[in-house]
Amino acid sequence: MSETRYDWLADRWVIFAPNRSQRPDEFRHVHRSSSSEVECPFCLGNEQLTPESLLVLPRRSKASTSPQLPTGRFASQRSNRTWQVRVIPNKFPALAPISLSGLSDLDVGHLSENHNDSKRPVLPMLDPLQSSYQLSGVHEVIVETPKHLNSLTQLSPTQCKLVFEAYRQRLNHWRAHDALRYGVVFKNVGSDAGASLSHSHSQLIATTFVPPEVFRCCQRLMQYRESYGKDFFEDTIEKETIAQKRIVYRSERLIAIAPFASHVPYLVQVLPIKDEPRFEETSSQTLGELAMLARQMLAAIEKMFPSAAYNFVIHTSPFDPNWDQSFRWRLEIFPRLTKVAGFEWGSDCFINPVIPEEAAARMREQLNLSTLLAN
Amino acid sequence: MSETRYDWLADRWVIFAPNRSQRPDEFRHVHRSSSSEVECPFCLGNEQLTPESLLVLPRRSKASTSPQLPTGRFASQRSNRTWQVRVIPNKFPALAPISLSGLSDLDVGHLSENHNDSKRPVLPMLDPLQSSYQLSGVHEVIVETPKHLNSLTQLSPTQCKLVFEAYRQRLNHWRAHDALRYGVVFKNVGSDAGASLSHSHSQLIATTFVPPEVFRCCQRLMQYRESYGKDFFEDTIEKETIAQKRIVYRSERLIAIAPFASHVPYLVQVLPIKDEPRFEETSSQTLGELAMLARQMLAAIEKMFPSAAYNFVIHTSPFDPNWDQSFRWRLEIFPRLTKVAGFEWGSDCFINPVIPEEAAARMREQLNLSTLLAN
Repeated sequence: MSETRYDWLADRWVIFAPNRSQRPDEFRHVHRSSSSEVECPFCLGNEQLTPESLLVLPRRSKASTSPQLPTGRFASQRSNRTWQVRVIPNKFPALAPISLSGLSDLDVGHLSENHNDSKRPVLPMLDPLQSSYQLSGVHEVIVETPKHLNSLTQLSPTQCKLVFEAYRQRLNHWRAHDALRYGVVFKNVGSDAGASLSHSHSQLIATTFVPPEVFRCCQRLMQYRESYGKDFFEDTIEKETIAQKRIVYRSERLIAIAPFASHVPYLVQVLPIKDEPRFEETSSQTLGELAMLARQMLAAIEKMFPSAAYNFVIHTSPFDPNWDQSFRWRLEIFPRLTKVAGFEWGSDCFINPVIPEEAAARMREQLNLSTLLAN
Repeated sequence: MSETRYDWLADRWVIFAPNRSQRPDEFRHVHRSSSSEVECPFCLGNEQLTPESLLVLPRRSKASTSPQLPTGRFASQRSNRTWQVRVIPNKFPALAPISLSGLSDLDVGHLSENHNDSKRPVLPMLDPLQSSYQLSGVHEVIVETPKHLNSLTQLSPTQCKLVFEAYRQRLNHWRAHDALRYGVVFKNVGSDAGASLSHSHSQLIATTFVPPEVFRCCQRLMQYRESYGKDFFEDTIEKETIAQKRIVYRSERLIAIAPFASHVPYLVQVLPIKDEPRFEETSSQTLGELAMLARQMLAAIEKMFPSAAYNFVIHTSPFDPNWDQSFRWRLEIFPRLTKVAGFEWGSDCFINPVIPEEAAARMREQLNLSTLLAN
């Protein structure tokens, strides 16, 4: 069972999850792009190795799937040969599971106290020296393909859009849950990025609290609006459009930029041009375009840095609607080219060897815009 | 030339240092413990490959060293066969060098405005969207041995104490410099910890600003003192002494603990029992004991995790004496066993698979206290 503790000095929560050290780690001996020798739990036909699906895309119609239930040695009633994207609970969750039937006493207590107060993080008062608290949440895996492919870039455009559709549906599902306050979708590819399995997948975490870093970010966005009377991201897009130097892609709906003060090299941020706080409420058109753009940007990273690990993270507004007025959803993609060394670790001062203007220029060269716009 | 930019949203400075991508990287192809095939610039006899020494230990006496100046093919006037520890400027500095002859106009301007105000970070008012500022500092390398050894644990006790003596002297040197506000000593071993050369070495960075994370930490320490009327670290040591569970080592002078809310596994923090803000002003006895303890802890880490990278960081009070009343110096050692994945990256919520009580117990088992106390 995981336990969460609070480091008062660093203003940081730490989740102790001893069960995560039991995770399979196929990277210890094999290269990320080589095929796995252990039986892959995400492959078609191995559904019995994972918990039951929470979502399957495309949606099953009873008539078409029932007759296809497999009957072989490894088949179970859960297996379904028609799935293209499966969402399952993470077998090694980072957080203690929430009670889906209702809230615990502790949750009820602090929720009733703070429920509508977006000025404070939703956490009880803490002992600076030793506060321990049972934080809970959900941790899911989005299996992006039934085939043993290592990258989202190997998926067809249709398949790739289904993956983003799964993100949207799961975030919408959890936003409606009373006990949860925040959700994030992310993708770790390669051991250096924190991945433990190579079959193309992403993850969703939703928590009963707003993480401190996210809370601080939200506060600063509100502060910006109060000080300048305008939206931080609107101003950013305006300024970047005038400067031109850091824009990687721009359409009617989306803009991709290498942020002015990226703390890691080749980080690209994709934002909606319109003021949309919630990723999961964007239009199908925007979602489809985002999926294609993400696929192209990952392809660019794979071409420029063939063996590099990478992450992407989709930030969406915390579930309390009070935050919506200043938040804007965004996708961040970044290869893991630099290591966090002793200095950065202790100072939060990052050393980035690549200036964003150069990163943007190289990314632009790599993007195949004609293919992107054709899909 | 490096440029520093400010990410207003994350409240984080980012140093762009394109010259660092030219650093030699012998880890790309060889294992950390294997001997290097490139000529090692830190080895005895290769002094001409590095800038001139800033400090050599033991201190040279003119009589003994002058006749020993080498005359061979690779020798230069800088080479000196008697050195045991050398401190040199980093050839690939993370920061723009400070002008040692005096302050620049910009520095003078903001220093005169904020010089005695420890309530604010020493930085001018910033544009939230795009602030760029030339931050400068010094970046030095402490070459810990003339031999091509890969670890501090391979040094003799005397040699190891000389290394810590070098840290002390260099920090004392830079604290006295008007333009500098903060200094830190750190050690990166292995590629995953950010090292680029395997010859045992550590680094010192001193900056014209207090990094945001350090500033926040200092503020919280002051806040603790104001709220509770006591010292944060004094209370921590008292509480840990009662609990016993997380203590790795304790003597009259030093205590080593696995902190209650460590964000990474097996992190150990060594603190002076007495309230000492500045590492560089500790007694020779404490310094010697710390050197031996650090050597033993690194040996324990190397034994438990033979191929793991690791870091240590020595935190000392920022140079403004106003911070001294609540700061305490400390050494932090941690192997790099976990990767920062998408979730941690976006939330500052770390996932640690090892509970500190267990980490402390395992570290205690590994420490050879009889050897430690004999030196």
